[in-house]
Amino acid sequence: MSGRKQIGVVLVGCGTVGGATAQILTRQDGGLSERVGIDLVLRAVVDIDFIVAEQIGLDKKLFCKDLGAAIGREDVQIVVELVGGTTAARTIVEKAIRAGKHVVTANKALLAHHGAELSALARKNDVCLAFEASCAGAIPIISALTGQLACDRIDAMYGIVNGTCNYILTAMTEQGRTYADALSDAQRIGLAEADPTLDVTGGDSAHKLAIMAALAFRRRIDFEKIHVEGIDWLEVQDLYYGRELGYVIKLLAIARRQGNALSLRVHPAFISDRHPLAWVSGPFNAVSVYGENSGHTMYYGRGAGGQPTAAAVVGDIASVALGNAQKKFQSLAIWPDRCEPADQLDIEHVRCRYYLRLQAEDRPGVFARIANILGDRDISISSLLQHEPNNGADEGVPVVITTHRALEGDIRSALNEVDRLDVIKSPCVCIHMVEEHPEQTGTWD
Amino acid sequence: MSGRKQIGVVLVGCGTVGGATAQILTRQDGGLSERVGIDLVLRAVVDIDFIVAEQIGLDKKLFCKDLGAAIGREDVQIVVELVGGTTAARTIVEKAIRAGKHVVTANKALLAHHGAELSALARKNDVCLAFEASCAGAIPIISALTGQLACDRIDAMYGIVNGTCNYILTAMTEQGRTYADALSDAQRIGLAEADPTLDVTGGDSAHKLAIMAALAFRRRIDFEKIHVEGIDWLEVQDLYYGRELGYVIKLLAIARRQGNALSLRVHPAFISDRHPLAWVSGPFNAVSVYGENSGHTMYYGRGAGGQPTAAAVVGDIASVALGNAQKKFQSLAIWPDRCEPADQLDIEHVRCRYYLRLQAEDRPGVFARIANILGDRDISISSLLQHEPNNGADEGVPVVITTHRALEGDIRSALNEVDRLDVIKSPCVCIHMVEEHPEQTGTWD
Repeated sequence: MSGRKQIGVVLVGCGTVGGATAQILTRQDGGLSERVGIDLVLRAVVDIDFIVAEQIGLDKKLFCKDLGAAIGREDVQIVVELVGGTTAARTIVEKAIRAGKHVVTANKALLAHHGAELSALARKNDVCLAFEASCAGAIPIISALTGQLACDRIDAMYGIVNGTCNYILTAMTEQGRTYADALSDAQRIGLAEADPTLDVTGGDSAHKLAIMAALAFRRRIDFEKIHVEGIDWLEVQDLYYGRELGYVIKLLAIARRQGNALSLRVHPAFISDRHPLAWVSGPFNAVSVYGENSGHTMYYGRGAGGQPTAAAVVGDIASVALGNAQKKFQSLAIWPDRCEPADQLDIEHVRCRYYLRLQAEDRPGVFARIANILGDRDISISSLLQHEPNNGADEGVPVVITTHRALEGDIRSALNEVDRLDVIKSPCVCIHMVEEHPEQTGTWD
Repeated sequence: MSGRKQIGVVLVGCGTVGGATAQILTRQDGGLSERVGIDLVLRAVVDIDFIVAEQIGLDKKLFCKDLGAAIGREDVQIVVELVGGTTAARTIVEKAIRAGKHVVTANKALLAHHGAELSALARKNDVCLAFEASCAGAIPIISALTGQLACDRIDAMYGIVNGTCNYILTAMTEQGRTYADALSDAQRIGLAEADPTLDVTGGDSAHKLAIMAALAFRRRIDFEKIHVEGIDWLEVQDLYYGRELGYVIKLLAIARRQGNALSLRVHPAFISDRHPLAWVSGPFNAVSVYGENSGHTMYYGRGAGGQPTAAAVVGDIASVALGNAQKKFQSLAIWPDRCEPADQLDIEHVRCRYYLRLQAEDRPGVFARIANILGDRDISISSLLQHEPNNGADEGVPVVITTHRALEGDIRSALNEVDRLDVIKSPCVCIHMVEEHPEQTGTWD
């Protein structure tokens, strides 16, 4: 016996992350409890089967199929939910809260959809909710947003928060692989699920964005109002043309203040190859935050995987054991159950630069007609490049246009009109171009 | 009156950082106290003059020249030391601690030299020491090291932690400016002090390294044993040759485990232009941490300046006001007063790759003699390039050699012998080459 205070933990869900968490908690040589100054004791592992738990050699005495019994133990203060999804997980989290247990979760979908209700329920039951592992794996971004950044006024946040997508886009950009091939690779090495829909359509990034933006801007976010585009429609030729212009493509999760409103969106974006997020490649994640005082800070690391995500789970367990997560949850006015709903801007009102690719017939007057349509809506062309035909003249020649900043609504209406022209062979490709966010810091020095 | 709990703050030292801190604390529109849930109230500003305080329009009722009176106030719980240096600052910090006040400081020199004693004194008086602002400005690296990373086993840490040096090296690399010119630029725009010695000799980086490494590795660091090289001897031609080989130069602060010992060093280093720290340019800082579970995480932001550093100071004030800094200080076994002295490796025992430039006479047999000297010590050549003479044949032709990993002691002895050769015109230039640190994570998945 160490003489240290003990905190009991029940782990619900023993897959990749749960298994890694259990290993960290039970390894005797790691010195975890010694470092934290509190014995973090795994009391039970609850699951419907124990395949992973057996594989990693967990003590069978920990295995438990009775959730209620495990949660109800007097010697348990923390329940870790690692089941995923929004159905069973929600029931588990609510049960734990009602039993007076603090909850640590990695469940982004659950929090993006029900964060405010669950926070309110936790508050009512005098426990707290900790969810570092829900966003960007090992990157302590929730800790930053609820720490020093909670004392700042956040102006904007830009994240690469889905490792699967970033891996696929890196492979398409650097190796010229098609989307389908890059996805297969990702699946083969375990970086993409058999059904990758939630990742490649941007939904997973949007979940994380909803969670982070709520804390950063102190607003309740309506998940359904986040504009979401995935990466599954991207073609290698556009990544190549972008690269020619000095841009790389990333799936960005963006939240920024525009007046009193917030613009929240997930979409692929061309960023300059000198942009601070341009070098973030493969399965890594990064989140840039622009604060009024702190200026630009960025947080980088592995966004997924058993051990990195477990590192975040264990960090939360320690924070709850110390009582720090509780203090933040009780005192800070940044939690979604305590905040007003955000005024979320419709994507039509976003101002941005755009990359457009048209497949046009190669004959006189085509440029003029397109330029007129754009000009009628105050969309100003920044660069224009006609490429050699890719697949024979039948498909038209690719014309790449980059615009100056324009209103998304105007771009959409212009492209609608362009697409109807008889000289246009297939629907325009339109990709957002995102510039480095300006820092505010120093404006009142 | 807000009805919120009040925490009183005394600010000692009102220069750039102190002034910015006072502004953040006193601005009524910022909503800081509302966000934190506690009224953070500036009670007094102590200094020997109030030039900055008057410039920024602070309420004169806050001005106070009597340190003892300000610290002794019953309505003050936190003393913020922003005086700098190790003499007066030490007295101020000790006085505050003995008066039972928590101390927030940005003073890296003080902590690097006296961190263990001051921690012990704080512990004895049941107060805590918070020092986020001492390392890397707005980057919440201390928060990360005392948060999630305190639950991990850190293998290595690599930092660019001096904005002045990084600005100078960026200007030398990207604009081909000489060291002297780049330094003048930095001084003109306020990025370098009139006396830049502490920055350009690496001393400031070593201070920060000592503070961060103590927490990361849970060891008391002997500052005097840190190997420190500055950037003031670097020549543009070497940066240019390095660039030809695909490397950029950075002043790195490195701490890594080697067996049970620690290697701690500050020196300029060539890193591949694909290295995760290569893109960190201008006045920005970044710290890479390699943890057993978390893998590689990186923290990036402004390493200096009034507002960014004040953001860290205010973050610490809030953390103390919440009681979280205290919990960490009391419970975690990572503070220097609680840890064993580190076994610090002498630089001679470091293994590294090296960039060497020799100014050799252009005649037969020279290479062979050099190669023999290196070979005798098991130093294996990775690449070799003879350049055109720079300044006429009198100075010899520059021969650039990169080595495979070798023991620093062997390199030094080899270079001693090479420098004595009659064909060598001036002392060899030797620059460390640092490769990306391998991640451990996944090894036991």
